[in-house]
Amino acid sequence: MIGDGMGPSYTSAYRYLKDNPGTKFRENSAFDQYLVGQQSTYAEDPEENITDSASAATAMSSGIKTYNAAIAVDNDESEVKTVLESAKENGKATGLVATSELTHATPASFGAHDVHRKNMNAIAEDYYDERINGQHKVDVLLGGGKDLFVRNDRNIAAEFKKDGYRLVSSKKEMLADNSGKVLGLFAPRGLPKMIDRTESVPSLEEMTNSAIKRLSKDKDGFFLMVEGSQIDWAGHDNDIVAAMSEMEDYEKAFKAAIEFAKKDKHTLVIATADHSTGGFSIGADGIYNWFTEPIKAAKKTPDFMAEQITKGAGVEETLNKYMGFDLTSEELASVNKAAETKRVLEIDNSIEKIFNKRTNTGWTTGGHTGEDVNVYSYGPSREKLAGKVENTDLAKHVFNLLEKGNKDVIIEDK
Amino acid sequence: MIGDGMGPSYTSAYRYLKDNPGTKFRENSAFDQYLVGQQSTYAEDPEENITDSASAATAMSSGIKTYNAAIAVDNDESEVKTVLESAKENGKATGLVATSELTHATPASFGAHDVHRKNMNAIAEDYYDERINGQHKVDVLLGGGKDLFVRNDRNIAAEFKKDGYRLVSSKKEMLADNSGKVLGLFAPRGLPKMIDRTESVPSLEEMTNSAIKRLSKDKDGFFLMVEGSQIDWAGHDNDIVAAMSEMEDYEKAFKAAIEFAKKDKHTLVIATADHSTGGFSIGADGIYNWFTEPIKAAKKTPDFMAEQITKGAGVEETLNKYMGFDLTSEELASVNKAAETKRVLEIDNSIEKIFNKRTNTGWTTGGHTGEDVNVYSYGPSREKLAGKVENTDLAKHVFNLLEKGNKDVIIEDK
Repeated sequence: MIGDGMGPSYTSAYRYLKDNPGTKFRENSAFDQYLVGQQSTYAEDPEENITDSASAATAMSSGIKTYNAAIAVDNDESEVKTVLESAKENGKATGLVATSELTHATPASFGAHDVHRKNMNAIAEDYYDERINGQHKVDVLLGGGKDLFVRNDRNIAAEFKKDGYRLVSSKKEMLADNSGKVLGLFAPRGLPKMIDRTESVPSLEEMTNSAIKRLSKDKDGFFLMVEGSQIDWAGHDNDIVAAMSEMEDYEKAFKAAIEFAKKDKHTLVIATADHSTGGFSIGADGIYNWFTEPIKAAKKTPDFMAEQITKGAGVEETLNKYMGFDLTSEELASVNKAAETKRVLEIDNSIEKIFNKRTNTGWTTGGHTGEDVNVYSYGPSREKLAGKVENTDLAKHVFNLLEKGNKDVIIEDK
Repeated sequence: MIGDGMGPSYTSAYRYLKDNPGTKFRENSAFDQYLVGQQSTYAEDPEENITDSASAATAMSSGIKTYNAAIAVDNDESEVKTVLESAKENGKATGLVATSELTHATPASFGAHDVHRKNMNAIAEDYYDERINGQHKVDVLLGGGKDLFVRNDRNIAAEFKKDGYRLVSSKKEMLADNSGKVLGLFAPRGLPKMIDRTESVPSLEEMTNSAIKRLSKDKDGFFLMVEGSQIDWAGHDNDIVAAMSEMEDYEKAFKAAIEFAKKDKHTLVIATADHSTGGFSIGADGIYNWFTEPIKAAKKTPDFMAEQITKGAGVEETLNKYMGFDLTSEELASVNKAAETKRVLEIDNSIEKIFNKRTNTGWTTGGHTGEDVNVYSYGPSREKLAGKVENTDLAKHVFNLLEKGNKDVIIEDK
């Protein structure tokens, strides 16, 4: 399970957000009791020493360091085997779940190969075209990115259907079906943020549970990669409301996986990030407080509000409806000014600024940052991941399990 | 061992800094192989939810959450027992080592009690006046802060001397002496940063080794708190050169402690931070690189250079001498402009900006931030600190060891 962009500040901030003020100590998040250590994330890139999601996902899927933008290919652009492929070779069921396009860098690095992450059409084709022992590689695909699968030049969804995959495109359809092979595409591109979703879009928890239900029917076991894709997108946008929305979506999916693993007793759960994003800090500008009230009050993301305004909704009306707190005249004026540009980005930024200022959230970049990220784990062999590891070690460990089988590594809970 | 302000970005950045470019993987720092988990740092303060160093040190010294600025007192201002005091009660030798004033928040929270950290005179008096079974509490005191001990109203250093303590005030004197009771004061206030030190000022490693040599003679064992105090000060200043200088000072002291513990086999080493500082990020402004060359080139901190300039040294001459790389005309102009103010702070900031820009270092605050910090440990019972703990758990664990003795908790190395 990969929380894209979920650096240490995000997991700590989420605990601030969920604190019950009536108790003396701050409650642990669902992650905390499973912390085993940290991993370093740097890429082996000729130009850049801070990783992107493709290089980091390839490290975690294939056990090699490579260049930024690489989708399960090495620095010489040769394809490298992924843990998902190894699982399929070993007769296991496999799945990919993401809130981004299913062809986005992280899931792609487990189920496809490409010299560049931007080639999302080719990545969608890989999912269909690349076979292992004549079989499709990925049995369960749930996420966003319908536009990459259903295209004028090729309808990959229809091809999957022809080969026995169920196609689902809403939460209702996903929940009504329980087949072992499924392609679920719930948005043209990325899914809406949790806080912005409509009833027809499943949560990451629901997709995770649906995937586990399907995959766990295979008596040989399964490999599933689940990505909370948009923690990172919120970080790039320096949007604390969206970041915490996506942290919640991801935490709930993590809980679902842990619940299954606790019952199953033979499943290893690993939850981590690929890097951190945005240079997010809990506290800014010399103030020793991070206020979560504005985040808890918000009913939609700044992006959602900005889009409403761009479509013609009144600024004050929109903000009153979705911010959840009264704005000062200065704050209102700043959004009104941005609205004059009629550009979503400008309006979005002006609303984010209000949240960042009121919460004392700091950001240093629209890109990624290089600090180590946390590794959480539950189940057999988790102790092998304890301490400080490389991102490549996660893949190496899973390859070992797939080759040797779980029997060798079942241990008592720590 | 407390690296004040040493959040996860600092320990990761230090690995970037020390990377051998001739090898494929980035080398681990001395800390990495001892990572056991993380601790949460928040204060129990009526006004602030991000901790200061006093509250965090009290949590780690006494096992209680309290308000910011509290020196080993609870929220009702009542004094609480510290692990150092418990060690002394149990007949062990005790020591405090710091690169700040010995009366600064972190060491003070182990060896003194006060309602406010700013009362550094009273804290120095506590070190002398407060007794346990008629004995002084702290046998070995090595650090800065002579001005707090040798004052017009009271000469605490002389009082210690009368009671059999050796007084040392230079590295040479410290190394020449090996008595079990010593007060070493190597600067009027904080020590110079490692990179700025003269020959007469000992490093944190040298003070740590000197303290261990003295304390380990006690057959009942010892408790020692070592603080790398100025990682935090560098963070407050948003000075990446000073931050990495102090990381190196602290890492070397950590190595010294580990070396002793490996030989001794009965010593538990815990190294952690109290909080992070500055909102420091590895990477900024959308750039996926953190360049360490300018940091490695620097021969002195920006503060040192700014002071030279304020004292009359030429701007260009000073920068050429100490920066270690050629400045652009724009960079030079920015420092020249700052120098017109004749204010150290302005000049310092202008030099720091050059390093921050060239390295792509991000900062969000002159204060602290709220993310969890890493816990490293070696020796008997380290496994009890594994995973995510509260800062108060560190004190609770050490209290347990002091009460039960090491015999109960000696374990095999993990």
